[in-house]
This record gives sequence, C-alpha cells and structure tokens, in this order.
Amino acid sequence: MSNFREESLELHKQFKGKLSVNVKMSVENSHDLSLVYSPGVAEPCKEIFESPEKIYDYTIKGNLVGIVSDGSAVLGLGNIGGAASMPVMEGKAALFKAFADIDAFPICLNINDPEQIIQTVKALEPTFGGINLEDISAPNCFIIEERLKKEMNIPVFHDDQHGTAIVTAAGLINALKVVNKHLEDTKIVVNGAGAAGIAITKLLLRMGVKDIIMCDTKGAIFKGRKNGMNSMKDSIAELTNKNNIEGSLEEVIKGTDVFVGVSVAEAVSAEMVQSMNKGAIIFAMANPTPEIMPEIARLAGAAVVGTGRSDMPNQVNNVLAFPGIFKGALQVHASEINEEMKLAAVYAIANLITADELSFDYVIPHAFDKRVVEAVTNAVAETAIKTGVARKIPNAKQENVV
Amino acid sequence: MSNFREESLELHKQFKGKLSVNVKMSVENSHDLSLVYSPGVAEPCKEIFESPEKIYDYTIKGNLVGIVSDGSAVLGLGNIGGAASMPVMEGKAALFKAFADIDAFPICLNINDPEQIIQTVKALEPTFGGINLEDISAPNCFIIEERLKKEMNIPVFHDDQHGTAIVTAAGLINALKVVNKHLEDTKIVVNGAGAAGIAITKLLLRMGVKDIIMCDTKGAIFKGRKNGMNSMKDSIAELTNKNNIEGSLEEVIKGTDVFVGVSVAEAVSAEMVQSMNKGAIIFAMANPTPEIMPEIARLAGAAVVGTGRSDMPNQVNNVLAFPGIFKGALQVHASEINEEMKLAAVYAIANLITADELSFDYVIPHAFDKRVVEAVTNAVAETAIKTGVARKIPNAKQENVV
Repeated sequence: MSNFREESLELHKQFKGKLSVNVKMSVENSHDLSLVYSPGVAEPCKEIFESPEKIYDYTIKGNLVGIVSDGSAVLGLGNIGGAASMPVMEGKAALFKAFADIDAFPICLNINDPEQIIQTVKALEPTFGGINLEDISAPNCFIIEERLKKEMNIPVFHDDQHGTAIVTAAGLINALKVVNKHLEDTKIVVNGAGAAGIAITKLLLRMGVKDIIMCDTKGAIFKGRKNGMNSMKDSIAELTNKNNIEGSLEEVIKGTDVFVGVSVAEAVSAEMVQSMNKGAIIFAMANPTPEIMPEIARLAGAAVVGTGRSDMPNQVNNVLAFPGIFKGALQVHASEINEEMKLAAVYAIANLITADELSFDYVIPHAFDKRVVEAVTNAVAETAIKTGVARKIPNAKQENVV
Repeated sequence: MSNFREESLELHKQFKGKLSVNVKMSVENSHDLSLVYSPGVAEPCKEIFESPEKIYDYTIKGNLVGIVSDGSAVLGLGNIGGAASMPVMEGKAALFKAFADIDAFPICLNINDPEQIIQTVKALEPTFGGINLEDISAPNCFIIEERLKKEMNIPVFHDDQHGTAIVTAAGLINALKVVNKHLEDTKIVVNGAGAAGIAITKLLLRMGVKDIIMCDTKGAIFKGRKNGMNSMKDSIAELTNKNNIEGSLEEVIKGTDVFVGVSVAEAVSAEMVQSMNKGAIIFAMANPTPEIMPEIARLAGAAVVGTGRSDMPNQVNNVLAFPGIFKGALQVHASEINEEMKLAAVYAIANLITADELSFDYVIPHAFDKRVVEAVTNAVAETAIKTGVARKIPNAKQENVV
C-alpha cells in the first residue's frame, strides 16, 4: 500500500491534477480570433438570446456536467471539505470523459449549508447540461437533490445514492437468476442507512421487492423506534419492515435471502451468513474492506457475493451507471433523470450478461466492458423520450420508439 | 459581414462550442482507475486536508481561472443574460489557453443581484486559482470586484476594467514618446464613464497624470453635477477635473493632448480633433466602429491613433494583458492582483517596443506578438513577490529579486 500511495501522489504531482481545458478551434491568427472571440462570437450569442434552446447547438453546455461537492462525505475520508475533495471530483470528471466522452468539471464548494448550496448550483444552470452531486453527506444530500430536481431544468443526479443503487439492483437481478429466486418473494436486509442504503432500498421497493428491513448501527429501523432516527429513517420505517421487527442485524438477518451492505468492514460474520436462507446473496460493499470477505461468505454458504472492489468478482462500480445515464439524458436534452430512466439503466446493465454467461462470480459486467455505456445510454435516452422528459428527439431514436 | 456571420455560426455549431475537458492521465484499466479514482485518489485528498497549500501540487487549481459573468454587459450586445453569454466566456477561456496555456472555464450565472453573485463566486474558491470577472454591468461590477478582492484569497480581476486600462496606458506611454510629451503635463479627456472608462482614469491618475476630465453622455463630470450621476461618478468628480469645468465633450476637448474613448461610434468629429493641442493622441476604442475613424483623425491632425480593431494600427486588445497577468499571479500563488502588478504589466507591454521601432502606427505590440505574455508574466510575478502578495517564490524569481 505504501508504494501505491507514493504512485498516486507522484502521478498527481507530476501532472498537477488530472484535467485540462482543451480548445477545439484554432486560435492562431487574427481571423481565428475574430471568429472565436470578438466580433464573431456575437453571432451565436444573439442566436441563443433569441432562441434559448440553441445554447445546445453553439456551446459546450449540451455535453457538460458539473460535479458538485462540498466534500462533506468523501468515500473513506469523511468530511474533508471542498478543497481537499478536489482530487476526487477531478477523478470523477476523468471517469466521465474516459467512459462516456462527456466533458465534466469539478465544482468544489466551501459551503455546507444546504440552502446556500442549492442557490449556488441553481445559479450555475446556464453553464451546465447536467449536475452530478457527489460526496455530500446525508441528510443534506437528500434535501439538496430534491430541491434542485424541482427547481432546475437540467438533470440532477446524486451518484452516491442512485449510481450505487442502480448497479446493486442490476447485480441483484442477475444473482437471483443464479439461485432461481424472484424479486417479489425475496427477503432483503440492507445494512447502512446513509445516502446509498436509502437509495438502494427505495429502488428495490420500486422494482417490486416486498420484504426489506433496513438496519443501522442501532439495528433494525422500525416504526416508532426512538433512538438514532431522522426524517429519512422515519419515512423508510413507513415503507419497509412491514412486521415492525426489532433487533440487531445479527437477529434480523436470520432467514433472509439477500444481504446488502453499505456499512463498515466486518459487520457480517460467517455465522450470520449461515443463518440466512439457502442460496444466500451477499453484496458487501463497505470500502475498502467489505462487511465480509467473499471467500468467508462463500464458505459459510453464500451462493453469490459481490463487493465494491476491483480485485474481487462482481464489483459494484458506479462507473457502470453514471456515464451512460448522463450520456443518455444529455443526448435527448432530458429535463430530468426520472425513476423510469434509472430502472431502464438497471435492466440495461443486468441484461448484458446472458443466461449462458451468468454464474456466481459473474452477475455484474466488468467496469471496462465497453458495451455497458452504449447499452445504458440507449436505454436511458429511449426511456426519457417515452416518459416525456426529452426536449430533443433524434430521428433514429424517434423511429425506435414508434 | 453576412458571410462572416455564417462562418462563425457554422464553426460554433460544428464543434458544439469551443472547449472540451481533457484528461491528462491514462484511464484504461483497473490499475489506472485505482490511481485516478478510488482508492488511490484518497492520498492527495489526505495531503491537502492536512496541508491546504498542497492543493496547488495535486490538483488543477493552480492553473485554473474561472471566467464569471452574468451576461449583463456583453460587448456590443448589452444585457443578454448568462446563458447567451456562454459563447463569449468560452471564447475568453480559449484565449487564456491559446495565449498563456492557462486552463480557464466559463461560469455563466442566471443571477444579477450583486450580493448573490458575490456569495456564489466565494463558494467556488476551492476550485479556482483565480477569478476573471467579465461583462458584468456597472455599477455591479465595481461592487462585486471590490468585495471579492477583500473576501477571497485568490486573485480577482475584472478584465473589462483593468485589462482595457492597462493596454490603453501602455499605448499612451509610447504615444507620448512619439510626440515627445510627458504624462505629468498632459491634458486628457476620457469619454465614457462605464467600467473601462473609470478604470482607465484611475490608472492614469495613479501613473501621474494630473489633468483628466471624464465625460459621459451629459458632458463633463464635475463636482456638484446634478444629472446622470452615481456613486462611482461622484468619486471620479473628486479625483478629476480640478478646475470643475462644465460643458459638452466638444467644449472640453479643446486644448487637450489626449482623447480616450470607450463610448460610441462617431462621438468625435474632425473639428473636435482640430481643436486639440498639436500632436494630439486619439484612442478611439468604441466597438466595432471607433469614435472617429483613424484616417479622418489623422487628416485632422492627430499624431497617433489607436482603436479596438484588429484591422487598424495600434489595436488596444485586452489579450495583451490578462493572459500574462493571470499567469504571473498564478505562478507565484499571488493572493491578489494589486495596483503595482497592474502597473508592472503596463510598462512590460510598453517597453517591448524599442525607441527605434516606435512610430505613430506602432505604439502597441501586436496581439499575436509572442514576447508579450512572457514579459507580462515575469513583470507581474516579480512585482507580486516584491509587494509581498506572493505565497510561493520560485527559486529563480527569488534570485532576480535579490
């Protein structure tokens, strides 16, 4: 790890960060200058002033995503603030570019008040075609996303919530095929009631799962629980845990089919896996050390195990979702990324693995599987059109829909 | 002009705007991913969290300028709003890159309230190494710049004010050499009391000019004038027009040595030039049509004429100033761009033309003169060090100072 640490620092120092701004047109003489800048630049300005939607023709907005963070919940590091989160947001922009050829740009903020963040991001609407919220702590992330979705006319997507949820759900669909179970009959425990856990739970409910219990450090979340609750957990208590079961994770995991962990290392023991139903599915996504190591879970009887790690099978990696989701949304100038578009992404990812290919250690496509971004892009764009949130319908797409 | 219009629209449409975000590191496999993103990215984050100044080592901040506009005073177009101003701000970013290899990025806002703009830009401080304010209308531009300069720890520069002032002043220094006059004894009329006019006047006063009268559409600005005044003009009335002369531009231009116009086409007639002192200097910078055409001014007796146009001699082009000013400030992590740094830029630009080369139609270096950016960069960086606003002193620079 020491060498790895050095390698990362060395690389970042050598390049002074990961991004640069590139100019697509030539700026080498007076003629270039008069087209790129004054006076020629006035022409697209006038066009956009008269027909605002032409901003997508003449500027970078249509392929530009702002990656907004206050650095309050950076993966594995906690609340390090906007400045120290810059390397992560630059990295995220690098992934947008590498995986979907989307121009993305870090917007790291030195403010934490949700209302201030909301006003700041809203003010940036002319510049960006979409907003990716990143590493903002709960419950602020929920407040900010909800308000921005309502008050902005461009897609707003909190990747820590929905990206993780979408890839987890895709993996779960395929894992259930491996063990020959159905979503509707499946008992699921989700451990960790932060942004990702809540989003996973809501998405699974929307997909038809009927029996979910969420746990946090205080155990099962149930209606009327007194300690460690907040408004988000209160609403989760209404939607899940129908029988109002109380108890620790160790108690409630017994007799379930699926464990989804977005919590901490070693939250799950071999005994706990043994107490689950036959054909247990484990998504142990704590970073960098999973809730239980795959080989231990497998020895304890788990049929399928996924983690967040690239060096283990079935990696739940958001990079399978957000590049295609934004690309699809941007392609049709979607005004939002709605629930149907997220579901379309889930099935697009899951369906890339054929019945023949499916196995206990291959339920999620690999991060670098080139087919993923195209499949997700197309599914999301088509669903945006079908659900009426697309403001531009490419001819080919229109035919597909008809 | 029609073909030119088409060419600009065509070019902007073909490329969908002028910028793209480029990734400097390779993102092609899991190893790359683990360095550029999780888990390797945590290392520079931790370093910055512990030593905030390391953000300049590990991120793009140190070479990144935010180009902020609300589109309220776009050159020649007026208040077209943030969205329609995107092509200009992208163009400005293209100039930063082409002339100084600085990464710059448009931040176009849909808000006009100065306090809201101030709060928004302040919130972006972690991301940017400097802020270039652009095309914001007076008096908001003054309020915003003053507050941001005080409340941010990175350089904030309103180019419409200071860029224009710096290049005009450089041209004037050389023009005075051509006619063998001295700044201190020169009578100057500045026509146009917007952002640029006010900044030019203030800079010239600081350089030692003793006799300036500013005019606006109501004529000379003097202490106690009742109509068409504002707080900025009130303060200008205190600093200029020592004899409290009243009257129209036509009246006050008589017997002066220099006319500086940042106003409108045809504001100056041949007769008005004839009424000036011998060896008159005219900077007629109205866009796209100057206050008086150079050939007419010359026929009327003007010794030196400059305009804002690239197809005429002595072009006052901000591109001579802002790229080097920001490059110099960024190079030494200056906390601000102070008056001394601006003056250093003036003389660096002026001094590039030797006594032998100077002539009535060559008092300002050409926009594409490659020597300019380096000369300005060095002068600005050295002056930042001398005046104590540099937070990083490169070894070579330190020796120069000692």
